Amino acid sequence: MYNNLDKTKAYGFLKSLTPFDVRNISGERIRKYNIKEAGSLSFNYAALPLDEKIIDQLQALADEQELIEKYKDLLGGAIANPGEKRFVLHHLTRGRVLPKKEVWADGVEKGAFYAKELERIRVFSEAVRKGEVKGSTGKAFEHVVQIGIGGSDLGPRALCYALNLIPLENGEKKMDARFISNVDPDDACGVLSDLDMETTLFILVSKSGTTLETLTNRDLVFKVMTSAGITAPEKHMVAVTSNSSPLAGTPGLQAVFFMDDYIGGRYSVTSAVGGVILSLTYGFKVFKAILDGAHEEDMCALEPDIRKNGILLDAMAGVYLRNVLGYPYSAVLPYSQALNRLPAHFQQLDMESNGKHVNRNGEKLDYQTGPVIFGEPGTNGQHSFYQLLHQGTDVVPMQFIGFRHSQGNLDAQVSGSTSQQKLNANLVAQIVAFACGKEDRENANKDFEGGRYSSLLSADRLTPYALGAILAHFENKVMFQGFAWNINSFDQEGVQLGKILAGKVLKGCEGDEKLEAYARIMGLK
Amino acid sequence: MYNNLDKTKAYGFLKSLTPFDVRNISGERIRKYNIKEAGSLSFNYAALPLDEKIIDQLQALADEQELIEKYKDLLGGAIANPGEKRFVLHHLTRGRVLPKKEVWADGVEKGAFYAKELERIRVFSEAVRKGEVKGSTGKAFEHVVQIGIGGSDLGPRALCYALNLIPLENGEKKMDARFISNVDPDDACGVLSDLDMETTLFILVSKSGTTLETLTNRDLVFKVMTSAGITAPEKHMVAVTSNSSPLAGTPGLQAVFFMDDYIGGRYSVTSAVGGVILSLTYGFKVFKAILDGAHEEDMCALEPDIRKNGILLDAMAGVYLRNVLGYPYSAVLPYSQALNRLPAHFQQLDMESNGKHVNRNGEKLDYQTGPVIFGEPGTNGQHSFYQLLHQGTDVVPMQFIGFRHSQGNLDAQVSGSTSQQKLNANLVAQIVAFACGKEDRENANKDFEGGRYSSLLSADRLTPYALGAILAHFENKVMFQGFAWNINSFDQEGVQLGKILAGKVLKGCEGDEKLEAYARIMGLK
Repeated sequence: MYNNLDKTKAYGFLKSLTPFDVRNISGERIRKYNIKEAGSLSFNYAALPLDEKIIDQLQALADEQELIEKYKDLLGGAIANPGEKRFVLHHLTRGRVLPKKEVWADGVEKGAFYAKELERIRVFSEAVRKGEVKGSTGKAFEHVVQIGIGGSDLGPRALCYALNLIPLENGEKKMDARFISNVDPDDACGVLSDLDMETTLFILVSKSGTTLETLTNRDLVFKVMTSAGITAPEKHMVAVTSNSSPLAGTPGLQAVFFMDDYIGGRYSVTSAVGGVILSLTYGFKVFKAILDGAHEEDMCALEPDIRKNGILLDAMAGVYLRNVLGYPYSAVLPYSQALNRLPAHFQQLDMESNGKHVNRNGEKLDYQTGPVIFGEPGTNGQHSFYQLLHQGTDVVPMQFIGFRHSQGNLDAQVSGSTSQQKLNANLVAQIVAFACGKEDRENANKDFEGGRYSSLLSADRLTPYALGAILAHFENKVMFQGFAWNINSFDQEGVQLGKILAGKVLKGCEGDEKLEAYARIMGLK
Repeated sequence: MYNNLDKTKAYGFLKSLTPFDVRNISGERIRKYNIKEAGSLSFNYAALPLDEKIIDQLQALADEQELIEKYKDLLGGAIANPGEKRFVLHHLTRGRVLPKKEVWADGVEKGAFYAKELERIRVFSEAVRKGEVKGSTGKAFEHVVQIGIGGSDLGPRALCYALNLIPLENGEKKMDARFISNVDPDDACGVLSDLDMETTLFILVSKSGTTLETLTNRDLVFKVMTSAGITAPEKHMVAVTSNSSPLAGTPGLQAVFFMDDYIGGRYSVTSAVGGVILSLTYGFKVFKAILDGAHEEDMCALEPDIRKNGILLDAMAGVYLRNVLGYPYSAVLPYSQALNRLPAHFQQLDMESNGKHVNRNGEKLDYQTGPVIFGEPGTNGQHSFYQLLHQGTDVVPMQFIGFRHSQGNLDAQVSGSTSQQKLNANLVAQIVAFACGKEDRENANKDFEGGRYSSLLSADRLTPYALGAILAHFENKVMFQGFAWNINSFDQEGVQLGKILAGKVLKGCEGDEKLEAYARIMGLK
């Protein structure tokens, strides 16, 4: 059954309940409101405005909207993307969550299809890393540059940056990984300026094979390679695309890896879109560990009891914050410099999936959907926008992420504590400061009202496995919220109008005086 | 006169007016609603919901709140930061806006003081760049690493990244510039991993000289230098700090440059905080051009006629969007990859300045102040969160930034247009798509309501001068809004509570069971 949120009983009930006052959190509550997830991951929700009655209703809402059943349907090959009449199969790139479910499309069983591509990535990446696959001048590849935008950029980039300091087994070396995304020519110019083209392999990523930015940057890169004397630039390029794309048959490429229309760009990190660059940079084992972490988290998401399923609880708490309490934004705050681009990926994942004004049947909604997502790593943010989070006129719900140990091998005791201890002491301090505040009766400028809500996703260490689990936590959270809002989280019609109008501008604006006036300002006419 | 916003006549009047429907913008309106600023910079506000009546009232509001007078007072040495009883003098780092005004403090004339530090930066940076100042092993410096956080990081970093591709005169070389900010030891570990310590100069930046993150990272860096066999690590370090700071007297440093308590961290890019690293990386001339652009923009901000002062109009339009129309956020969207970290700097600048719940006298406010600021470069954002901006359930006001020409020398015609033309065609298309939308009666999922507000700040090219002007546009915008809201935009009491609690955690939590419970989760107990 597909119902709008405001047709559910639980939603009405939730509006009648008083939110828990987080200024009253206790040690006991903090210990109790903690749910184990994949590996060492756990989700703590003590500083969210929930009490047992509200959690009961969040459970009722999840049940009424049949969230677990809809997740299972999606896994089993339902048309979970009704606008585009497509399956939604990104979970299958990391393993079968429902053991015996086969999903057939385009004449192939998709689980087997993704597994085959994964094996092809293993073989290719190992050959490149061993120097068996070489560039056109006979040199081994040392640099890898992904050309892609949106889903073909933000997720792979965030994960690639996140693993910069992990140690590799047997002294294996990392490849130097870079990304070109923007159609702004300065992007490619900056990335390529100090690269040796002879030892550089490019990964061209576009599902449709028609993305303006990506094709333009491909041609720019070809131009640079040719200027550098590379006579067979295709030998320095692989593509990741769909079977039916014009890229699939490009002659001379080193290799082509396939994904398909059943994986949305923003959900494609665990497909070849992220797999090729992550396997090249860190070795296939590392990519496989990411998949394993994501898969285990996908399994955790099946649990129907909201008190045992941190993903489901996170999702329903988000709906409560958005629709009952009315907060239009949510901050993602990782206390880990390695995760510096994860907020940008989650911003895409969440806002592109759930920034919708119609339900899955195309009917306009009378309630709010996805919030604005933003964030920067802590402790950096503390010295920046946290001022507003603490003392602004509005409450901004927050999602903290933290790790008990650092990733790299550099640390030292300074003034009695290590840097990692200082980092985590700040994380702990912020959660409590936001929740509880501190009264100052003499000076209102130094008064902290508290009542600022947050949750905490924590793990032992930022390993590839933990990274995959965190990724899947957010992917599945967004999916559950989309089900609760009764929207299609898997299309993106909102990107189309801009593309059409940009085409008109490039054709001289075709008589549209508004476009023409702005085009003049931007030097296009 | 200092009045709260809701005590002004204009505010009441503004609430009674109907916002202009931007779906009706015309070519004429776009041409007319355009204000020239410093150099080639101009501010277009055609796609903001303003008409002549509303603009009249924004002028009335600016007059009633005496914004230009308060700006002049600030320039002339009023206590514009009343909470900390300090002057606010960052404008003075780039020149005297009011010609004959001297500002004396601590026994020196501050204009002369900043000019002297600027001259010291010139001499030192030229000596380093010529290889006259060398590291402890006799080698010239090639790398420069700034250690700072918040205002000592985000602004200098954003500007440093922004100029990556500018050509230097006479074939001068750029130094390799990097930044360490986070107390997370993985930050320093990642930045230092491939650096030759013999040719690296560190810039330690902390106004107070007591910033936890910065002092900790200094000690980590000393450790790494010592391990690398550098016996006089101080010879690889300069400090930027205030006269009274414990850093000022550190023995053996290559140099110490001074700023003071009259320049807030987030306003310090044009002081030694940004000046040392920008002058080292690009040469002093480039830094001076940034100052010149900022100074010219500071001059533009003096204009009392809101129709001739784009900064003032931008500021008052922001108050209208926030307080009359009720939008809690604003997106900063530069169509320039070089500006990829500018949104993070403006996020700090705006949210730390104006995220306040009390007025300048410490009385609680009954209206909203600073919004949440977020953003990513276009066209990247188009493939990410723009879905929500176009079709989400809420309107998010936007601030576009664009340039008619690219910065680097790489571009090519692909399918009849250059990359730069494609970039700007997209920028133009997005503004119109957001404003005007496009009805689709058959499929609501493809329907664009329009009525999404934006402004456009544009310039010929992202030169150092234009960059300085853009920086000063936003700094002065935030200042004017702070005056309109009657708040102190120059203190940051909201950062204090977290510091105190982090100290408790590092001391074992001192009996606070909430801190202790979270500390256990994060492995600190």
